[in-house]
Amino acid sequence: LSLRVEIIVIGNELLNGDLADTNTARLGGWLRKRGLGVTRGQTVPDDEAMVAEAFATAASRSDLVLVSGGMGPTEDDLTMSAAARFAGVALAEDTVFLERLKRRFEKRGYPFTPNNARQALIPAGADALHNPVGTAPCVRLVQGEATFFFFPGVPRELTALIDLYLEPWLTERAAARPYISATFLTFGKTESQVASLLDGLTRDARMHVAYRAHFPQIQVTLHVFDADADAARALLDDAAAHVRSALSSVVFSEDGGATFAAALGARLVAADSTLATAESCTGGLVAKLCTDIPGSSAWFLEGAVTYSNAAKSSRLGVPPELIVEDGAVSESVARAMAEGIRRTARSTYGVGITGIAGPGGGTEGKPVGTVHMAVAGPDGTQHFKRTLPFDRNRNRVVSAFMAMDMVRRALDGAR
Amino acid sequence: LSLRVEIIVIGNELLNGDLADTNTARLGGWLRKRGLGVTRGQTVPDDEAMVAEAFATAASRSDLVLVSGGMGPTEDDLTMSAAARFAGVALAEDTVFLERLKRRFEKRGYPFTPNNARQALIPAGADALHNPVGTAPCVRLVQGEATFFFFPGVPRELTALIDLYLEPWLTERAAARPYISATFLTFGKTESQVASLLDGLTRDARMHVAYRAHFPQIQVTLHVFDADADAARALLDDAAAHVRSALSSVVFSEDGGATFAAALGARLVAADSTLATAESCTGGLVAKLCTDIPGSSAWFLEGAVTYSNAAKSSRLGVPPELIVEDGAVSESVARAMAEGIRRTARSTYGVGITGIAGPGGGTEGKPVGTVHMAVAGPDGTQHFKRTLPFDRNRNRVVSAFMAMDMVRRALDGAR
Repeated sequence: LSLRVEIIVIGNELLNGDLADTNTARLGGWLRKRGLGVTRGQTVPDDEAMVAEAFATAASRSDLVLVSGGMGPTEDDLTMSAAARFAGVALAEDTVFLERLKRRFEKRGYPFTPNNARQALIPAGADALHNPVGTAPCVRLVQGEATFFFFPGVPRELTALIDLYLEPWLTERAAARPYISATFLTFGKTESQVASLLDGLTRDARMHVAYRAHFPQIQVTLHVFDADADAARALLDDAAAHVRSALSSVVFSEDGGATFAAALGARLVAADSTLATAESCTGGLVAKLCTDIPGSSAWFLEGAVTYSNAAKSSRLGVPPELIVEDGAVSESVARAMAEGIRRTARSTYGVGITGIAGPGGGTEGKPVGTVHMAVAGPDGTQHFKRTLPFDRNRNRVVSAFMAMDMVRRALDGAR
Repeated sequence: LSLRVEIIVIGNELLNGDLADTNTARLGGWLRKRGLGVTRGQTVPDDEAMVAEAFATAASRSDLVLVSGGMGPTEDDLTMSAAARFAGVALAEDTVFLERLKRRFEKRGYPFTPNNARQALIPAGADALHNPVGTAPCVRLVQGEATFFFFPGVPRELTALIDLYLEPWLTERAAARPYISATFLTFGKTESQVASLLDGLTRDARMHVAYRAHFPQIQVTLHVFDADADAARALLDDAAAHVRSALSSVVFSEDGGATFAAALGARLVAADSTLATAESCTGGLVAKLCTDIPGSSAWFLEGAVTYSNAAKSSRLGVPPELIVEDGAVSESVARAMAEGIRRTARSTYGVGITGIAGPGGGTEGKPVGTVHMAVAGPDGTQHFKRTLPFDRNRNRVVSAFMAMDMVRRALDGAR
């Protein structure tokens, strides 16, 4: 009953370090959302005999074989000739496809070369499926018990074509199983800390809990499969409620709805509040993350990247003597930066960040990774200090997230 | 003579969409630098029988089999039991490894559980290789003509262990072929434009030219294999000189030595010049890219993220009537921003960027993607306008790169 699915990705570039294959994960994720697992994967170089052999192996052990790559116009693209060899048939010109291809080139004023005409050659007896998003063909071939789909390797085309052709094929065979899921994004705990907070989650054979790190965030996904849609929903709702309560302090987004900055922005808007930032070691990263969000002009007023001491004083009014006495990386300077940007930008909240991201610049008293963060708001100024253990890039990213998290907590306190 | 190399990556997460495999590309790139190709790849789920079968298939057709994943302490980690099954031997406790593991846990004050002890079980007759960077074992097993290396799936550990154990193994067999390469990073042309600029490059069977897009940059790598080291060097030097001359206007870095911002920083330092930025639509991205570079405080003075019109006027002295008359996204405002930040930050060069990154905010006269960039310097102010066709994120990234490129060209002009 259960469909045995195999994925074959083709291309020298996948085996020589030029490109990491993402199509296996793309197809695997797409299939999981339809309740289907993938049994095996093969990666094969641009060699006709080896590709044909991989097809034969797959046909002997799988019901559905999804192939990506090698469908382009150059001589290296030999997926179709390998398929013909495997099926023991000749290549035949698909005239409908050829005419469509010629018209497409004509319309755009591109010259139509013999190489382009090669793309209309598919194994005799196979079905050419119209590709509305590119020039490469999409082909289906049935061989014995196995059905092969051949897709171009370009992720954008692959994604469009599996929706167009694989989805109805599965539906027709009632091969897809009911599937629902819930996704939570967290910040502030490690993967193992998050996992142990969820120790009390019901064990159920119908549910799979997956953790995935998107530094510095941890994503938790609950996957539920049950032929009874109501039972699936009840199980997922129960589990999701448990996750929400167990991880309440660290979950900032559900179902991929918002980035950390977007979630913060939504809360600022809800509280009719605005933000301005004064950054030293993070160098504009908080401003960049905030302005990544369309519509952020509603809550993000401005940012100052005061890398030099002179800028800290002239832009934010940080007293030069404070910098001399306590150093640029200090609690007092972080507080003065947060208060200075809040005052001059006339924002509800002001963020100040100063630290030593590394790799150089550390001293005995202030090692690399030292970061002082402050948030100034209507209820005063909060300060937070950490010594981070990561490299320059990760120290900056974590600092930016921690500072945004401080604003979130200040908003919580203000309610 | 030539070694047949196969890669096997193990883990459900690689087939269900949770994680895209990067280890195949990592191993493939490492091997290519040693003149070796990879013949095949397999992706196998956490299933002992299937993993054992994959090992048997690989042993029948390859000389060297590199396996990653399934070496952890949990019940899902069954690479070692599958290897024992494949080799027809029992699992045996490696007492040296077990003692080392126990000491490691003791030293860190972690409890040592039966699961941890499982990690010391390896197939009888296999060699345990000390892993100095983690708790998972690294194991070598010879079976018939094939040699297997089993590595943990964690990229950091894998990378360290192939240097430690695979490198000497290849050297001992004189399996590695002489290999040299040169890498060029470009900005300002598409991949096909770069490729056609290099049409005149010598075709030589000993040289492979690879293109790789790191949006918005295109990387060109020349790979040369020749047993005669002098001949290889001569071929590479000739080809590299050709690339340098054909792509002179767009190459900004050689041999991965510098990011775009780092290359700009080096040129600013060489010209004893400094930079300050005033960003609207890019929201701090230029400042972030500049301060990604360790030591950027030598040339990056400060950045202003003037998202609101009020901030453009108060921080940079952009006349409010200019914003009213020409609009915030206009040549005059971009120029005033660049000149304003240069004046107030007292930098050699000032950058101003204002645009509509999207997805909203476009009008008929100023569609989404419109961006005005200006660079103010000792020789006056240059302005540049583009209408970009990408999404919000890519529009911002390209704008940031184009603005940095304008500074580079201003420096060229000032020489």
